[in-house]
Amino acid sequence: MRKDGYVVAVAGATGAVGEVMLQVLEERKFPVRRIKLLASERSVGKTLSFRGETVKVELLTAEAFAGVDVALFSAGASRSKEFAPAAWKSGAVVVDNSSAFRMDPEVPLVVPEINPHAIAQYAKKGIIANPNCTTIVTLMALAPLYRYSRIRRVVASSYQAVSGAGAKALEEFKQQVRAWVKGEPIPVEVLAYQIAFNVIPHIDVFQENGYTKEEMKLVYETRKILEDDRILISPTTVRVPVFTAHSVSVHVETEAKITPAKARELCAAFPGLQVQDDPANKQYPMPLFAAGKDDCYVGRIREDLAVENGLNLWVCGDQLRKGAALNAVQIAERLIEKYL
Amino acid sequence: MRKDGYVVAVAGATGAVGEVMLQVLEERKFPVRRIKLLASERSVGKTLSFRGETVKVELLTAEAFAGVDVALFSAGASRSKEFAPAAWKSGAVVVDNSSAFRMDPEVPLVVPEINPHAIAQYAKKGIIANPNCTTIVTLMALAPLYRYSRIRRVVASSYQAVSGAGAKALEEFKQQVRAWVKGEPIPVEVLAYQIAFNVIPHIDVFQENGYTKEEMKLVYETRKILEDDRILISPTTVRVPVFTAHSVSVHVETEAKITPAKARELCAAFPGLQVQDDPANKQYPMPLFAAGKDDCYVGRIREDLAVENGLNLWVCGDQLRKGAALNAVQIAERLIEKYL
Repeated sequence: MRKDGYVVAVAGATGAVGEVMLQVLEERKFPVRRIKLLASERSVGKTLSFRGETVKVELLTAEAFAGVDVALFSAGASRSKEFAPAAWKSGAVVVDNSSAFRMDPEVPLVVPEINPHAIAQYAKKGIIANPNCTTIVTLMALAPLYRYSRIRRVVASSYQAVSGAGAKALEEFKQQVRAWVKGEPIPVEVLAYQIAFNVIPHIDVFQENGYTKEEMKLVYETRKILEDDRILISPTTVRVPVFTAHSVSVHVETEAKITPAKARELCAAFPGLQVQDDPANKQYPMPLFAAGKDDCYVGRIREDLAVENGLNLWVCGDQLRKGAALNAVQIAERLIEKYL
Repeated sequence: MRKDGYVVAVAGATGAVGEVMLQVLEERKFPVRRIKLLASERSVGKTLSFRGETVKVELLTAEAFAGVDVALFSAGASRSKEFAPAAWKSGAVVVDNSSAFRMDPEVPLVVPEINPHAIAQYAKKGIIANPNCTTIVTLMALAPLYRYSRIRRVVASSYQAVSGAGAKALEEFKQQVRAWVKGEPIPVEVLAYQIAFNVIPHIDVFQENGYTKEEMKLVYETRKILEDDRILISPTTVRVPVFTAHSVSVHVETEAKITPAKARELCAAFPGLQVQDDPANKQYPMPLFAAGKDDCYVGRIREDLAVENGLNLWVCGDQLRKGAALNAVQIAERLIEKYL
């Protein structure tokens, strides 16, 4: 780690995740010597605040990475594909929040609490990928169980917040709510359907097999992060009218028996995860309270009624923080600590 | 069936389900000779409209059932326990929407499309029970599959509308939304937590085993309706900020292989169920569009990625209609057609 700090670029700085990246860098006192805010043309000239100073947004180009040490990308998969290799060439290590490189065998896919050792592979392409938000939130609860006993099978149904679809989708959702209160026609342009007072079982594009890309991310990314290609996953991902924080209903089948008490013990000992599981006192995770928090929350841990080594549980986590910005910054922290 | 019609009592007429019962009786031209609207003290004297006429709400007492042929109960389990036997004694057959008698071995539990033969047992106690709303919606999609091949196992996660918690909860939800728009404090009195912009993994009371009553209803009622005590069910029931119509993410494992194409064919042929399953054209069930409809909707039918004879699917249905009032009136229709 350098004593004089690092030049950090945030690509996609004006997006929902980009803004939280700035907050998280500030909160965690990441050793930033200089910050560069990069975005596409229509955001150039906007200003954002970082550590009390006003910073201008610059155009995202290959040249913009000259002198940059760490580049945090959250500008969409196509921009990552276009600019991440250039950033690496000009000397920056890239932590990429998009799906562009996640399944590239030469790019590590990292949740620092789960597979920090994978960071060591960063130099193959100069990129470390940040997993999908729902994958991170789900795995934060599954990883402590997996360490105790291999997981055979997972059935997961998600309840994903609207800000996961981006800042524009969130703004439209709020406009829909306001329109409903005023009795006005409800605008629908960003998402496929009205999300206010609705639930949409469709996130990202549909694949040949009838699953969405979002669902298949949960399958493939889980296998890569846990380094277990045999783990079986049945995913259903669903958008719900919540501002921030994803929730996931998870059924899990393990090789060895894990009692609910043992599961609570394992989860409580896991960094970044809090057990919130006292039904008698109405304590269970909810997105309204997980939003804005760094930790993920697990609760409703109960023995499965159907299979012997089964558990059902309920996880919530702020998908902009642990599901995106925070996880990326945590990767960058380990990266500079050990390698830069 | 009598040519001069029937005297019909609606107990709990002013509740969320009671009002829909009146609508459904009207829409379906149920042969009502006279309607009696019954409710607890605080609703007495209110008036409701039935077939264009204004009807006064009377006090729900044992004596109120004199001369009544069919009594539709939706006034909560304790009132059903108190008054349903009296209604039967004074000559009325009771269709009860509460949970009071559902698991009573002498009371049939009926979804007319699935187990109409059970209605014949009505005279044992004079009561036919209407299943839980989430159970009905889920089983409308599972029943056609079950007829083709026995179902071994189900993992279900629900997305339940606020009106399922009653008219007061729905009103509070709307007030919460209005308060948010005005920037005012959000009122929370009826439900355990704020439901606007939140998701609550808690419906009905918690049991010793960590499951809620709502979840256990799905287990026990499914077994009773399908007449199969071996069927394994892992339930998670969750309240979402939707006005009306429940959604359920269902993973199902069958004894014989059912391809998605076959499942669509079986579901399309089932009365009261519509297949809405064309992802390429963004066609899948959603609560916003299932609300107010009599049919249930199934879509996102896809081969499971984890087990050989597995399917994942997504069901929506108006829980006040098919999940409650409509199903009760359908039971009453079969009852008068064959037995009264």
